[in-house]
Amino acid sequence: MLVVMNAQATPEQVKAVCEHIEQLGFRAHPLPGAQRTAIGITGNQGEVDRGNLEFLPGVADVIAVSKPYKLASRDVKQDDTVIRFPGTDAVIGGGHHIAIVAGPCSIETREQAFAIADKVAAAGAQFFRGGAFKPRTSPYAFQGLGLEGLQIMAEIRERTGMRIITEAIDAETLEMVVEYADVIQIGARNMQNFSLLKKAGKTRKPVLVKRGMSATLDEFLMAAEYVMSEGNYQVILCERGIRTFADHTRNTLDLSIVPAVQRLSHLPILVDPSHGTGKRNKVVPLARAAVAVGADGIMVEVHHEPEKALSDGPQSIYPEQFETMMNELEQIAKVLHREVPRGIHAGTATT
Amino acid sequence: MLVVMNAQATPEQVKAVCEHIEQLGFRAHPLPGAQRTAIGITGNQGEVDRGNLEFLPGVADVIAVSKPYKLASRDVKQDDTVIRFPGTDAVIGGGHHIAIVAGPCSIETREQAFAIADKVAAAGAQFFRGGAFKPRTSPYAFQGLGLEGLQIMAEIRERTGMRIITEAIDAETLEMVVEYADVIQIGARNMQNFSLLKKAGKTRKPVLVKRGMSATLDEFLMAAEYVMSEGNYQVILCERGIRTFADHTRNTLDLSIVPAVQRLSHLPILVDPSHGTGKRNKVVPLARAAVAVGADGIMVEVHHEPEKALSDGPQSIYPEQFETMMNELEQIAKVLHREVPRGIHAGTATT
Amino acid sequence: MLVVMNAQATPEQVKAVCEHIEQLGFRAHPLPGAQRTAIGITGNQGEVDRGNLEFLPGVADVIAVSKPYKLASRDVKQDDTVIRFPGTDAVIGGGHHIAIVAGPCSIETREQAFAIADKVAAAGAQFFRGGAFKPRTSPYAFQGLGLEGLQIMAEIRERTGMRIITEAIDAETLEMVVEYADVIQIGARNMQNFSLLKKAGKTRKPVLVKRGMSATLDEFLMAAEYVMSEGNYQVILCERGIRTFADHTRNTLDLSIVPAVQRLSHLPILVDPSHGTGKRNKVVPLARAAVAVGADGIMVEVHHEPEKALSDGPQSIYPEQFETMMNELEQIAKVLHREVPRGIHAGTATT
Amino acid sequence: MLVVMNAQATPEQVKAVCEHIEQLGFRAHPLPGAQRTAIGITGNQGEVDRGNLEFLPGVADVIAVSKPYKLASRDVKQDDTVIRFPGTDAVIGGGHHIAIVAGPCSIETREQAFAIADKVAAAGAQFFRGGAFKPRTSPYAFQGLGLEGLQIMAEIRERTGMRIITEAIDAETLEMVVEYADVIQIGARNMQNFSLLKKAGKTRKPVLVKRGMSATLDEFLMAAEYVMSEGNYQVILCERGIRTFADHTRNTLDLSIVPAVQRLSHLPILVDPSHGTGKRNKVVPLARAAVAVGADGIMVEVHHEPEKALSDGPQSIYPEQFETMMNELEQIAKVLHREVPRGIHAGTATT
Repeated sequence: MLVVMNAQATPEQVKAVCEHIEQLGFRAHPLPGAQRTAIGITGNQGEVDRGNLEFLPGVADVIAVSKPYKLASRDVKQDDTVIRFPGTDAVIGGGHHIAIVAGPCSIETREQAFAIADKVAAAGAQFFRGGAFKPRTSPYAFQGLGLEGLQIMAEIRERTGMRIITEAIDAETLEMVVEYADVIQIGARNMQNFSLLKKAGKTRKPVLVKRGMSATLDEFLMAAEYVMSEGNYQVILCERGIRTFADHTRNTLDLSIVPAVQRLSHLPILVDPSHGTGKRNKVVPLARAAVAVGADGIMVEVHHEPEKALSDGPQSIYPEQFETMMNELEQIAKVLHREVPRGIHAGTATT
Repeated sequence: MLVVMNAQATPEQVKAVCEHIEQLGFRAHPLPGAQRTAIGITGNQGEVDRGNLEFLPGVADVIAVSKPYKLASRDVKQDDTVIRFPGTDAVIGGGHHIAIVAGPCSIETREQAFAIADKVAAAGAQFFRGGAFKPRTSPYAFQGLGLEGLQIMAEIRERTGMRIITEAIDAETLEMVVEYADVIQIGARNMQNFSLLKKAGKTRKPVLVKRGMSATLDEFLMAAEYVMSEGNYQVILCERGIRTFADHTRNTLDLSIVPAVQRLSHLPILVDPSHGTGKRNKVVPLARAAVAVGADGIMVEVHHEPEKALSDGPQSIYPEQFETMMNELEQIAKVLHREVPRGIHAGTATT
Repeated sequence: MLVVMNAQATPEQVKAVCEHIEQLGFRAHPLPGAQRTAIGITGNQGEVDRGNLEFLPGVADVIAVSKPYKLASRDVKQDDTVIRFPGTDAVIGGGHHIAIVAGPCSIETREQAFAIADKVAAAGAQFFRGGAFKPRTSPYAFQGLGLEGLQIMAEIRERTGMRIITEAIDAETLEMVVEYADVIQIGARNMQNFSLLKKAGKTRKPVLVKRGMSATLDEFLMAAEYVMSEGNYQVILCERGIRTFADHTRNTLDLSIVPAVQRLSHLPILVDPSHGTGKRNKVVPLARAAVAVGADGIMVEVHHEPEKALSDGPQSIYPEQFETMMNELEQIAKVLHREVPRGIHAGTATT
Repeated sequence: MLVVMNAQATPEQVKAVCEHIEQLGFRAHPLPGAQRTAIGITGNQGEVDRGNLEFLPGVADVIAVSKPYKLASRDVKQDDTVIRFPGTDAVIGGGHHIAIVAGPCSIETREQAFAIADKVAAAGAQFFRGGAFKPRTSPYAFQGLGLEGLQIMAEIRERTGMRIITEAIDAETLEMVVEYADVIQIGARNMQNFSLLKKAGKTRKPVLVKRGMSATLDEFLMAAEYVMSEGNYQVILCERGIRTFADHTRNTLDLSIVPAVQRLSHLPILVDPSHGTGKRNKVVPLARAAVAVGADGIMVEVHHEPEKALSDGPQSIYPEQFETMMNELEQIAKVLHREVPRGIHAGTATT
């Protein structure tokens, strides 16, 4: 932490700030400059509360230097985290395999879910996504099938082998999701629902955390840190677009966060171009871009009859588009010396 | 809802869209223009899913016309909602009284809480705020005193008469908050925690909903709608700053939402200049601005020793500043023919 | 400037960075911390280009400490800048007088301009605004009367005494504006048109710089610095709303920049609630808020027939609203021990 | 254009609005709905000023339907615009060739410029970029070599064959740029400098317009429209990142605008990952993503000694990175059945 003094700060004020820092149990290092003095603080294990310093006489600014996350940081763990799915060859993370997660926004009926699952499994998806509990902006909109939706997805796993990713929205639904799914999804609107993050951290299932609509990189990693601080280190991040003034897409997909996360953290990061754009004709181009930028995987909404979908129809792609996309992603992955595995198999992944 | 066709759309495409609309059970009204044709849709009670229309051949855009909220809208209830506090003369809403909510960010100790409560009560606050359950960005930061904090605040109500506003962060804490507090606060990070909103809607205590950091006006009112859709109509809105690129304050306080809400909704709206700015020296100026713009009240953090506060010290004002502020707000309120009540009294409010 | 090293940086890397800094002619101050080492840089008069440091091995981050502006800073000049208008008692800045600037968006006809000018002068405005050269988003929209508009405003000054503020959009129009107007306005879209800022800096007329739609506080002050670096120190700042995701107003008026500017700079700052909201029914509430927050003045669009205005009709207030507003602003100013002067008079201001 | 009435609007109010529309010379089409009435307007060639309608009694909202741009729209010209460079086989636009523009941020010295030019030409770039007139945030920063910089670039064209793209910042520099360069660049900060856009529209050189930091898609296309409205139809768009709250990159690169532009407009669109990220280690990943999303080309900063660069060093890549990138882009382009031409040759492009 660094305290920057005003240009007019007196030597007495500088001294008083240094003494204050020492009283807090830290070391103060005054650095007189041409225009103003800065004071470095060392000896603090974590964050020093700015409130202790920002309003002392003569202080112009207080600047944080250390990052607030620990367990999510490459400082603590240098090797990539790889999430494995016992009994299968599927992995998420590790820099070689591109994980493909596909399925409808919501599980609407057994027929719809199976129709879509069969298509995406045939095209090679290893993970199936589908909402059983839907956080909808309107209380009057379809809220999901609930438990029945989870049971349908468990059957899909039986039938196709695909591992299941689905969202939990509170303590009750989390318990059910843990029972039926392979990965617990925490949605963008709950990225700072710290109570839910902690509860997910007490489970031993992998947790996929979607980036909040206005989350900075630090906040995004802190959400992962909440899960990890409870002992669950199997966290997957997912960029899904941020809220900006731009009105030509539903959100603005921020692909630059992929290399930024990979520099600071060992956790895998996926990209969701469906929520990231909100428009079918932009999903495949942005999925290609996500693989090209180096993402560890793609999460995409597929629907065989999007015009009849109960939610997010306009951003769901057709199964035929999904198949074409898989081929394109495979070729782009090769340019980065990566691989898009086709289908899930019994066994153990070699990464 | 309005469907806008491409300039090159053929008459057959227009016809096909109209037929599609009619099949959905609505009426289609084609409106040929100089450049392109638009098709109005009527007969829909709620929102028509765009997914049904946006991708038909020849369609350029689909525009929503009706607002998604009902119970929160002045269309449904024209008179201002006034929240009353039985046995007292305090009210929130109604266009005449400015409600003043003050207290520390967190309840840290009984001594701290009482010291601050006595000061703000003496200066005339009718409502006391204090966090018992704190949603902190870092899992390693102080998380609040929990139940003990609630009990301290209940004592403060006994002693000073002030009504208590405090945050619930999940189902468990909601139950406790309902038991001890007068108003349930839903924090900005939980504004789209729909599960929590519904649970708050099942209680019969007033609910204060803070605006999410990236919430549009529609989404803000939809959060209120979630609470109201469960039968609890006592909702108070609170602007607390939005996330923008501007870096000179912690958030950007959006005061224009006050007249915007008042035009569309009957619900009262407060302003929180503490979170809205994050900087002590900006809290009082923005509090004055909030009363001048027409807000129904102010929610402000006060601490007698902010440099020792366990959270949000830099944005807490001193009790002496609070007192001066009360005098300034009183005078500004008069310019709008409003009143800042001083102290809470037994009886019934006359609005 | 501060260089933050990685947690794993080796002592050799720290040493190499220090040597690099010394080679650049500065002093390096290594500060070993519990988690990582930071290196303070002193001896630099201006900004050290980060490019020199950010990519050395072991470097995690480079943090700027000094502010880039000099002449606009209170570090250099502690007393408020007061802009005077020779031969009159009008001033902008100085913390006591609230300057009121009013008039139509565009000068459309002599009749329109005089009708509005007479109304706002009668209500006490000291400054008249009106566009002769309009930067319109569409090339097909009304672009202003040009020279004729300037001549009409010069006549208005003759007749009413009000000083004239109008926008220049390039070198040619700047020359004309200097000849006819009292204050040169640089519009939000040109806030980083550095060529125009420099040219305005070479004149000796006061320059009003409107904040760009996505300008940070630093960039806003740097635009003023551009003008001042050419020797023209009479700069007035004007907040007019920033671009955010919020869609209930045309822009989001950022009133917190008023105390932020006043802390860092000696320059006066006005607020424009017309462009800041884009909606007539929000102009007066936000004008009140601007005075309450401590702005040095208000710039507002007034039109006697806004429904016929060639530009910005929906955000123009009626002359009767302007009159009522003046009375409200006067009373709010008193709460801050300030004054809204009524009318412009021969003589010299005493501030 | 569509006028939406309040739910409580009376039949008289609806009638009055219709009459008002008819008086303006348009046709009104009332559409009574279950909740409220909407009124469609037809017969308007351009935009109806909302000011005429928004404040009539009973009106809730006015919604624009037509797009404001004409010449830039696919409605007017369906085929892609292809910019050709006489005497060479280079093109920008047309959906098959990926144009590669590379060079330093600023021309600093003849040696620097030639060193970089030789490297990028050898790696296959067809276009050379370099700033002679630099719009810098600080008036104290290096402002470019001016005319000398242009002359150096003209020599580079002679020597390497690469076509030259460089920025003009006002009328004077535009004249010089037209004389020496092949493409006139209008920078992001001048995207709404309408005076400059019109002047560029009067030349007959291709104009590359960079997206403003807070420009919507409509505003971006309107900037192109300004150039085109003066008779110069050779406009190239360039996405270079927008300003958001995200602080891990200098700007947020908005790749979704590429398919959005391609849907609405026939103009080519490039992507600049250097300004779009501001960080060297993110430039190549985002360049790959830009080709994968379907951009018509890439504009990238290259410097052989970025740590000594006078501007934008940290976002410039090394010549070796550029070479590797070219190979990656070539392979990704193939996935989209496109081509990255290597080197510029005499002749005529076949597209």
